[in-house]
Amino acid sequence: MSDLLWPGDHRAGDLFTDAAIRDAMLRVESAWSRALVEHGVAPADALVSVDQLGSAAADLDLDQLSAEAEAGGNPVIPLISALRKGLSPIAASWLHRGMTSQDVVDAALVLESRRAFARITAELLTQIDVLSDLADTHRETPQIARTLTQQAVPSTFGMKVAHWLDGVLDAYDETSGLQFPAQFGGAAGTLSALVELAAAQANSQGTALAVTRSAAHFLDLDAASPWHVVRTPFTRFAAAATTATSSWSHIANDVLTLSRSEIGEVTEGAGGGSSTMPHKANPVLSVLIRRAALTAPALASTLQLASADAVDERTPGSWHAEWATLRILLRRSVVAASQTTDLVRNLNVHADAMAFNLSAAGTAVLSEQRSMAELAGHEPSGETVGVAPLLVDATLRRAQELTRTRLAERPR
Amino acid sequence: MSDLLWPGDHRAGDLFTDAAIRDAMLRVESAWSRALVEHGVAPADALVSVDQLGSAAADLDLDQLSAEAEAGGNPVIPLISALRKGLSPIAASWLHRGMTSQDVVDAALVLESRRAFARITAELLTQIDVLSDLADTHRETPQIARTLTQQAVPSTFGMKVAHWLDGVLDAYDETSGLQFPAQFGGAAGTLSALVELAAAQANSQGTALAVTRSAAHFLDLDAASPWHVVRTPFTRFAAAATTATSSWSHIANDVLTLSRSEIGEVTEGAGGGSSTMPHKANPVLSVLIRRAALTAPALASTLQLASADAVDERTPGSWHAEWATLRILLRRSVVAASQTTDLVRNLNVHADAMAFNLSAAGTAVLSEQRSMAELAGHEPSGETVGVAPLLVDATLRRAQELTRTRLAERPR
Amino acid sequence: MSDLLWPGDHRAGDLFTDAAIRDAMLRVESAWSRALVEHGVAPADALVSVDQLGSAAADLDLDQLSAEAEAGGNPVIPLISALRKGLSPIAASWLHRGMTSQDVVDAALVLESRRAFARITAELLTQIDVLSDLADTHRETPQIARTLTQQAVPSTFGMKVAHWLDGVLDAYDETSGLQFPAQFGGAAGTLSALVELAAAQANSQGTALAVTRSAAHFLDLDAASPWHVVRTPFTRFAAAATTATSSWSHIANDVLTLSRSEIGEVTEGAGGGSSTMPHKANPVLSVLIRRAALTAPALASTLQLASADAVDERTPGSWHAEWATLRILLRRSVVAASQTTDLVRNLNVHADAMAFNLSAAGTAVLSEQRSMAELAGHEPSGETVGVAPLLVDATLRRAQELTRTRLAERPR
Amino acid sequence: MSDLLWPGDHRAGDLFTDAAIRDAMLRVESAWSRALVEHGVAPADALVSVDQLGSAAADLDLDQLSAEAEAGGNPVIPLISALRKGLSPIAASWLHRGMTSQDVVDAALVLESRRAFARITAELLTQIDVLSDLADTHRETPQIARTLTQQAVPSTFGMKVAHWLDGVLDAYDETSGLQFPAQFGGAAGTLSALVELAAAQANSQGTALAVTRSAAHFLDLDAASPWHVVRTPFTRFAAAATTATSSWSHIANDVLTLSRSEIGEVTEGAGGGSSTMPHKANPVLSVLIRRAALTAPALASTLQLASADAVDERTPGSWHAEWATLRILLRRSVVAASQTTDLVRNLNVHADAMAFNLSAAGTAVLSEQRSMAELAGHEPSGETVGVAPLLVDATLRRAQELTRTRLAERPR
Repeated sequence: MSDLLWPGDHRAGDLFTDAAIRDAMLRVESAWSRALVEHGVAPADALVSVDQLGSAAADLDLDQLSAEAEAGGNPVIPLISALRKGLSPIAASWLHRGMTSQDVVDAALVLESRRAFARITAELLTQIDVLSDLADTHRETPQIARTLTQQAVPSTFGMKVAHWLDGVLDAYDETSGLQFPAQFGGAAGTLSALVELAAAQANSQGTALAVTRSAAHFLDLDAASPWHVVRTPFTRFAAAATTATSSWSHIANDVLTLSRSEIGEVTEGAGGGSSTMPHKANPVLSVLIRRAALTAPALASTLQLASADAVDERTPGSWHAEWATLRILLRRSVVAASQTTDLVRNLNVHADAMAFNLSAAGTAVLSEQRSMAELAGHEPSGETVGVAPLLVDATLRRAQELTRTRLAERPR
Repeated sequence: MSDLLWPGDHRAGDLFTDAAIRDAMLRVESAWSRALVEHGVAPADALVSVDQLGSAAADLDLDQLSAEAEAGGNPVIPLISALRKGLSPIAASWLHRGMTSQDVVDAALVLESRRAFARITAELLTQIDVLSDLADTHRETPQIARTLTQQAVPSTFGMKVAHWLDGVLDAYDETSGLQFPAQFGGAAGTLSALVELAAAQANSQGTALAVTRSAAHFLDLDAASPWHVVRTPFTRFAAAATTATSSWSHIANDVLTLSRSEIGEVTEGAGGGSSTMPHKANPVLSVLIRRAALTAPALASTLQLASADAVDERTPGSWHAEWATLRILLRRSVVAASQTTDLVRNLNVHADAMAFNLSAAGTAVLSEQRSMAELAGHEPSGETVGVAPLLVDATLRRAQELTRTRLAERPR
Repeated sequence: MSDLLWPGDHRAGDLFTDAAIRDAMLRVESAWSRALVEHGVAPADALVSVDQLGSAAADLDLDQLSAEAEAGGNPVIPLISALRKGLSPIAASWLHRGMTSQDVVDAALVLESRRAFARITAELLTQIDVLSDLADTHRETPQIARTLTQQAVPSTFGMKVAHWLDGVLDAYDETSGLQFPAQFGGAAGTLSALVELAAAQANSQGTALAVTRSAAHFLDLDAASPWHVVRTPFTRFAAAATTATSSWSHIANDVLTLSRSEIGEVTEGAGGGSSTMPHKANPVLSVLIRRAALTAPALASTLQLASADAVDERTPGSWHAEWATLRILLRRSVVAASQTTDLVRNLNVHADAMAFNLSAAGTAVLSEQRSMAELAGHEPSGETVGVAPLLVDATLRRAQELTRTRLAERPR
Repeated sequence: MSDLLWPGDHRAGDLFTDAAIRDAMLRVESAWSRALVEHGVAPADALVSVDQLGSAAADLDLDQLSAEAEAGGNPVIPLISALRKGLSPIAASWLHRGMTSQDVVDAALVLESRRAFARITAELLTQIDVLSDLADTHRETPQIARTLTQQAVPSTFGMKVAHWLDGVLDAYDETSGLQFPAQFGGAAGTLSALVELAAAQANSQGTALAVTRSAAHFLDLDAASPWHVVRTPFTRFAAAATTATSSWSHIANDVLTLSRSEIGEVTEGAGGGSSTMPHKANPVLSVLIRRAALTAPALASTLQLASADAVDERTPGSWHAEWATLRILLRRSVVAASQTTDLVRNLNVHADAMAFNLSAAGTAVLSEQRSMAELAGHEPSGETVGVAPLLVDATLRRAQELTRTRLAERPR
């Protein structure tokens, strides 16, 4: 899948591509058939493996499936119809029974979202390592701090990196705590079809709930009550992705500023070329990371709006608006994650330029400190960067603790 | 190009696809070469036709081009590099000279936007015809008006259709008045490279401007001063597209409401099926149209934000954020345009259900009118729908005038 | 009305304040009564002047009115109720008859919007003058152009100002062409109550329409068919306001960048102080202008969403979401308009720093030009800024033509 | 503080008003002075109580303060200047020393945000109680489920209420887990001025950090490293507020639909009147709640954008954009919280209308179930609502557990 208009898109690989979505839907149908059989609701012959479904769908052209999705408003209806033609009569008649289209679409989106966040979280972990090293290395590298674009007071580059790291840790905190709930509710969230299928059993309702738990388990998703009109899982994905893109954009913005020709305190490891100006080395990764972050809040707002518009037992329009929005937001987030790792890993830090700019700023930037010394009645101490190194240490400790805790909590 | 997650996407055909964008870029480069040659800036051998460029790019895999676009942050750099390998030395050395990447990307986006708006405007014209007929037919078909979800006072279905039509006319007014400016400024908007190329001529500056005018003419775009950091053309595209999607969503919302099982005053010509419930006929087109309209304002806001973020002579990140946003917004608009035409063309109007609901509403809905009669000191007139038919007529006249004027203004 | 959290807010004066909105609603009711009387629908004693209504509402505490607005969901219901207590029985009984709450709220919002855009348009005209002078003065002042944050090629400061001016002209183009439609439709847009009131007349429908035209005329608003569910007037206000704030932000962004300590090519006339650092002169106006522009697209998207959500004959929630959004967007736009006028009027241009930075950039920034000379087979011409001066002239001409045309078109 | 354009605004009381913001800033300055004195940095006479500051600011007109805030871009500069005039020389000279404007503004915003979320969380707890009762009462009340606006299959009203409750629980989960961090960093986040003030002490850096911890403690805020350019605290406020408004809007949307004249399954306890139609009882609370939720995602996106735009050690424009956005978002959230409590507390449930509509839907809505019975080879079981009652129970258990856990975790 190429994307000429989103350079770097290839970094997201096949995440959320049409093929990946189709495959995720097949996994959902297979897991469901396995759960039906396991709990004695369907006969053993109803079991269909992902491979069987893949074979049944082998001739299924994605273009055609996509076009046929319009008639019913979602891709599940033509998918099921096509699959049934390629399965044994028994398997065909049991396929999808007890679920509804929304179950399959939502579960597939969660499966792909989980893959996306696994990538994002892994990148964040790498960034935490790299930024921790960078902050430590430059814990005391002098640099002028700038506020509202103007040179303000002395600080350190390590302090700046620690702020970058704080943002990345906030993002890690959110992404590593996400839930990935399965969605199984049937036509309107009551599982009435499933209960009917299990009616011959003593406890058909208990069986129905057990089927959904098993299907969730087979997909390695969190078991959950139906959330077809309670869209918090998706708004949390949106919030976490946006926290992440903002944390990366913060880094990118600083690199864009500090690599300005007139400042030159950092440069990207491999600047981008120009189609016309051979002398230029553009901060391309930073440009592309900032790009993603500028589009993320609006995409997140669409998911929040969709949640706010929930009505009845299936929301017309707002549910449908979520699908592509989630795809776009999460693919872009994965791309930006990967680009940010490259950016921080290869960042060239010019401590000499930092020293030069600080020196060129003159003594005016110490004026606040001088007046403080005067107020306190002593000579200026000469300690110009306050507690910057201690704050760096605090963030480094936070990084160690957060990653250790989360890794320990992570289920095997 | 399939899109499982945006049912109906196929209606947009190849608009803004990677292949279409690449072809548009080739057209820009070809037009530029032609202008250079025509004005004696480049030698005749520098001329490259679209076909020649297409051949030179024949082996150019879109996946590879897309991946290589990241290094410089845009697809023009690797495209030019690849093209030069497939051209004669003269043509290769003159290709793209005087332009910059932004010129090519922006002009290609405008070319595709023009195609998109041509589709949208044509659909709007059809809708104006269909809705005009529908409003006229139901000019006096009684229907209860509803405000804040509650039955309010009698009106007519023609009045409602006239409101739909007013929105569609507003959209037509905007889309048919759009400008499609070319973008030729060179490295930083001064055309300095082009002037240098033409330096042997008496009036190199005049020649440079003439080249840009000719290139615009060859592309059938409006000649314009460089707008690399003045992004109004794109924000106007966004505003016009959003006006259109909102006008369609208004129709869709009414269809969604009026086709509720308990109301039943209209139904879609061919309702969508359900993966589980054979009795259901969902208002699928309305669902999908509303979907598009819910996502459009956020996409438009991204283009407006990009404009607000303009800085220097090329904006880092915000410029890059525009490309895919424009693609997504305009493809979705074209899809919704086409779906809306189908929706209004095939709408089933159940005047009997309208009459039933109005009758069932009882006399309470005439209470305001009764008190007005009392205040005015006469018996209720029995004219319950006020000036609704006259307002329908006014909108029908507006439709005739607007479409006639615009068609007359349209350049040949 | 203070606003500690939006410094500069006082520049918007009483625009859209609660008092201004109440007064606008009184003007609407007065104009309506005058139209009813003029067309013989109501008796002469039904006429109420704005002053009479003001007296009747004199004891009306805005806090109380605001609190009472909740019960019916809008401020008109308690306002009418309070006014009737302070009027003669005849006037009281005729007050508001034939209108509905939405008519009054919408017309009041349009009246305040017109005032806001009058302010904005006037500021834009001033800015066009100032920027035209500035562009002309610096038509040939050398300055390095910067792309993607990096020094690129030589240009002129006049060229940059011309781009600022282009944006401002685009904004003027939109704001000066806005329509300000009246809204008179009665309970559900059919004017049925008004027609009933006029039922004793030969042509009660014609009289009803004439009443609405007269009321619009008395308010100096454009006559229009009811647009209670066709919200294009408000989305056009939003689009025009956003075009304006983006054009100002473009200027502000450049000032923020060019006034960076390390660049120093421009400074604000009177920089802002710091609570702690006596040496700093912050580009405060630019900061505040950028602030407004960053919030405008999201506010505009809310108005577009409200339009997209239209349903029935009065939209639940979306209509109500428009009111405060319009207030906030337009007040902020007026503030930013005024701040931008100050910014450009008092801008300090440091041509010496521009020359220094350009010189310090060295010959690398001429590399593209050198290779063009080589390609064209001549020595570098030494003309480094291309057609920049001619493009400045083109924009100056556009400024003259656009303002002349619009002023000529403007009705007396 | 009235707000004619946001009916219900008075429910938010003085939260985030200018007076409340000023008072919060005074509390921050007072707490800081106390911390300076407690740690021996400032002399005892530097201590200023909130009351003393209130007296010193007694003549400070909010209008004037607001107007003066523009010069430096924030309200702290003129506030400090005015306060110093009303304090003893010692207190005046020590006031605010070691902090910067951003510290005071941010801490004041957090203080007001905490008040807002305390209100929101309390309302959520009440809603959880009310909805738990409602779900339990209607655990088996039959109601037709509707998907994509069409009658689908039987369900129960308790099931619907359980979904409402799930959303409210998600919101409670987020709001009750929020952190409210203090912000103390000085001019650029290094606390260099504070360290200089404490330079006479053996461990001036340790003292500086201790001062910030004490000041946070005095304000009952969470101690935190400076987050002047890491804006996650505010984006989390935005995310939590939006989750809440969406959960309420879900309820409101269902009430709007179910109270439609043609459906009539629920009505608001006290419907709103109309300015013209005496027979109408509008679902006003639902209208106003939906209104808030439609505007929240865009406001939240502004806060996320501001976070994404972070640069240097103080962000120009984006920081300033946060203040009013947070005020508007959180006031509206408090209003909607309170309105939702009223809505659910007084909701009239018409079980008879639910039964009627279900019955009128006929046997078509059982068609899926019949085909399931056929597939499973048995007669239809007659159990039409699946596991709905069990899912209600699961949500009720979740409500009990979540509120119990959170209350236990809450610090004293």
